[in-house]
Amino acid sequence: MTKKFNKISVPGFLANGISVGIKGGTAKDLGLIYSTIPAKAAALFTKNTFKAAPVLIDMERIKKGMAQAIITNSGCANAATGKEGLQDALAVSAALAKQLKIKEDLILLGSTGVIGKKLPVKKIEAGMSKLVKGLNDSGIEDAETAMMTTDKYPKIAIRKGIVGAKEITICGIAKGAGMMEPNMATLLTYVMTDALIDSKALNTVFHQAIDATFNTISVDGCMSTNDTAIVLANGLAGNNPLERAQARLQRFRDMLCEVLNELSHSVVKDGEGATKFISILVEGAKSRSDARRAAYAIANSNLVKTAFFGADPNWGRVIAALGASGIPMEKERVSLFFGDMMVYAQETGMNANLNDLRKIFQKDRIDVRVSLGGGDKSYCVYTSDLSHDYVKINAEYST
Amino acid sequence: MTKKFNKISVPGFLANGISVGIKGGTAKDLGLIYSTIPAKAAALFTKNTFKAAPVLIDMERIKKGMAQAIITNSGCANAATGKEGLQDALAVSAALAKQLKIKEDLILLGSTGVIGKKLPVKKIEAGMSKLVKGLNDSGIEDAETAMMTTDKYPKIAIRKGIVGAKEITICGIAKGAGMMEPNMATLLTYVMTDALIDSKALNTVFHQAIDATFNTISVDGCMSTNDTAIVLANGLAGNNPLERAQARLQRFRDMLCEVLNELSHSVVKDGEGATKFISILVEGAKSRSDARRAAYAIANSNLVKTAFFGADPNWGRVIAALGASGIPMEKERVSLFFGDMMVYAQETGMNANLNDLRKIFQKDRIDVRVSLGGGDKSYCVYTSDLSHDYVKINAEYST
Repeated sequence: MTKKFNKISVPGFLANGISVGIKGGTAKDLGLIYSTIPAKAAALFTKNTFKAAPVLIDMERIKKGMAQAIITNSGCANAATGKEGLQDALAVSAALAKQLKIKEDLILLGSTGVIGKKLPVKKIEAGMSKLVKGLNDSGIEDAETAMMTTDKYPKIAIRKGIVGAKEITICGIAKGAGMMEPNMATLLTYVMTDALIDSKALNTVFHQAIDATFNTISVDGCMSTNDTAIVLANGLAGNNPLERAQARLQRFRDMLCEVLNELSHSVVKDGEGATKFISILVEGAKSRSDARRAAYAIANSNLVKTAFFGADPNWGRVIAALGASGIPMEKERVSLFFGDMMVYAQETGMNANLNDLRKIFQKDRIDVRVSLGGGDKSYCVYTSDLSHDYVKINAEYST
Repeated sequence: MTKKFNKISVPGFLANGISVGIKGGTAKDLGLIYSTIPAKAAALFTKNTFKAAPVLIDMERIKKGMAQAIITNSGCANAATGKEGLQDALAVSAALAKQLKIKEDLILLGSTGVIGKKLPVKKIEAGMSKLVKGLNDSGIEDAETAMMTTDKYPKIAIRKGIVGAKEITICGIAKGAGMMEPNMATLLTYVMTDALIDSKALNTVFHQAIDATFNTISVDGCMSTNDTAIVLANGLAGNNPLERAQARLQRFRDMLCEVLNELSHSVVKDGEGATKFISILVEGAKSRSDARRAAYAIANSNLVKTAFFGADPNWGRVIAALGASGIPMEKERVSLFFGDMMVYAQETGMNANLNDLRKIFQKDRIDVRVSLGGGDKSYCVYTSDLSHDYVKINAEYST
C-alpha cells in the first residue's frame, strides 16, 4: 500500500534552504518550511532543564495547536543565551512574519549547533527576503540540508497512501548525528502532511509515533538543549476527517510510524562516527520500563559500543552492562543471543564458536537479543557503535 | 605526620606475583597476598547482578570477618562461567590452602580479565607451589603487577603513622583502568595493615573510606562483574586497640582515606586512554544525592569527555549534560566555572575569552565547578577524558 516516491513534495507545503553565513562558509544554514494555509500542529520537546530559546518560544506557541511555518538555522543552538537569546529568536520570528505576511505566533523556530553562542540575527534578517522568495514545492531537501551539522547526508522519508477515501502524503525530515537519547524527539524532526485531522487526534498519534520510533534510538546517550519534533497537518488532501478511535486514524498512525521509523534509523546510521547499526532487544521482562532500562544500559555502554566497532566478540560486556542496569532479574533464566546464536544461558557462556561470532560482529547490522525469562514485556533500542571518528568529530566540534 | 616510604612492606604481610601463562605470555598473572597470622577482614563488592565466581565465594567467606590470604589472577574474569566457574575458583582455593597449610575459608579470591572465559585451573595449580615458595616481605609490587590488565603502571600507596601509641602501616594496591563506576569499589583494591582494630570498627571505616574515595571516580560509567575491595588488618603493630567512636579510630580512618584517595586518583589517571585528570564539583545542591547525580551525569557524558580530550572549550556541553541529569534546579541560579573562570550564569554565557578558556582545557588537570545556588550540599567526582586510545584499547580487548 505504501511506497517511496522520488519527488519530495507535500501538497500545500513550500520550502527552501539557503546560506546566510552562520556557519562561516557557503553551506546552507537557514531553512524554512511553509504551509500555504495555517495547519494543525503538535510537537514534542527536549526534557533538558536548559531549553534553548527557540524551544521555549515553540512550547508557548504550540499550545494553540496551529502553525504555518518553521524556520531553522544550523551553526548556532541559541541555547544558554538567556534573555538576549529569546529576544534574538523573537527578532527572527518577527522578520519572517513580516516577509510571509502571517501572524507571528503561527511561526515555530528551530536552532542547532554550538551551545552558548549568540545567534547572528543580522545575518538571518539579511537573508530573510531571499529565503522567502525562494520558497518552492520541491524545496524540502534544501530545507533539510540547511539544518545539517555533523550529519553526513540529509534524512528525508515520505509515504503516500489512501486514508479516509483520499490519497494523503506524509513527509518527514530529521537532523541528527549526535546527542540523542530516549525521552525526547532527537535533535530536529519535522513532519508535513496534507491529511485532514482533528487536533487532539494529531497530538495523540504524534506522541505515540515518536515514542515508538525516535524514543527507541540512542547514539551517545546525551540529551540536547534543542531537541524538537513538530508535525504540521494542513488538511488539503480533503480526506474524511481523522478523529480519535477510528480505524482510519490507525492507518494514518501506521504511515506516520513508517516515516518516523525510517528517519530514526537513518539518524542512527548517520550517528557521529557510526560504522554499524545495532538493535538491542530485551524481552521476557516483567515490565516495559525494565526492558527499556536494560536495553538502554547495554546500548549506552562504551565498552559494548567499542567492542562492536572493533568486531571484537567480547559478549561478556553485554552481560556486565545488563547486570549493571539494576533491573530485577532471575539471573539463572537470562540468555543472550547475537542473531540466532546463543552465547550465554543458565549463568554460563555456551562455548560459542568465536570465529562464527566474530563474523556476526563484523557485519554492518548486529542484532542483540537478551531474554530475561521473567515476563512478557519487551523493548528494542537501536544504536550505533563507538568509533575513532566519534572521538575525532566531538573532540574538535566547536572550533 | 604521614609520608611516603620507598620500601613497600607491611609488618606480617608477605606477597608474590608470578607468570603461569594465563595471559598467554610471560607477563605476571597470578598474585598472592598473605598475612602470617589470620587477620581481621572487611570487603565491598560490585552491585552487578552477574557477579563473578570469586566475588560470590568472597561474599560468603567475608561474613566471619577473618581472612589470611588473597589470591588473584589476571587474564580471565571467571565471570559468566556458572557452576563450573565456582568449582574452578574453589579448586584454586583448595590448592592454595594445601600449600599454605591454612583453612580454606581464610582464603579470598580475585579475578580480572575477559568475561565468559573459563579459568585455566591447571595452569594455576601448576604454579601454586612456586607462588607460595616465593612469598617475601617486599613482594607487594609483584602481587600488584600480577593483577594488571590494561593498566599502564602498578598502583600502590603506603602511609605510616602513630596511632594508638604505636607506628602502624597501611598499604593499598589497586588494579583499575576501565569499567569504573560509583556504588562500588573499582575493579580490585586490596589494603594491608598491621593495625590492631575491632572487626566492626574496621568494617565501618573501610566502607566510609571507600565511599569517600573509590566511589567518587568514574572512567567510563561501566560497572564490572568483579569489582572487589578488601582490607586485611593483622594487628601485629600492637597498638592500643582501635574501636568505634574513638579519636584514634578517626586518625586511622584519615590514613586509610589518604591511601585510598591516592590509589583512586591513580586509577583515574591511568584510565584507559586517559590524557587528562578532571574534577567535577557540583555544589549548592539541596541534597548530596542530587549533587552526585549531576556530577556523574557530567562526568559520564561522552560529549563532555571528548571536548576535554580535544581541548575544545565547548562549555555548553557541560550545561547540556547538567540539564539532562534530571535533578531539580532553579536554572536562573546555576553558574559554571572552569578553574576560577566563570563561563555561565543567569542562564547566559559570560562571553568568556575562548583563548583563555582553551588554555584551561589544554591542561593535564581540569577543575569544573557547577554552583546550583539551591542548597549547601556538594559532591565531587573525578574522571578522565575520552580519547582515541580508549576506543582503540576497547575495540581490541578480548582478541
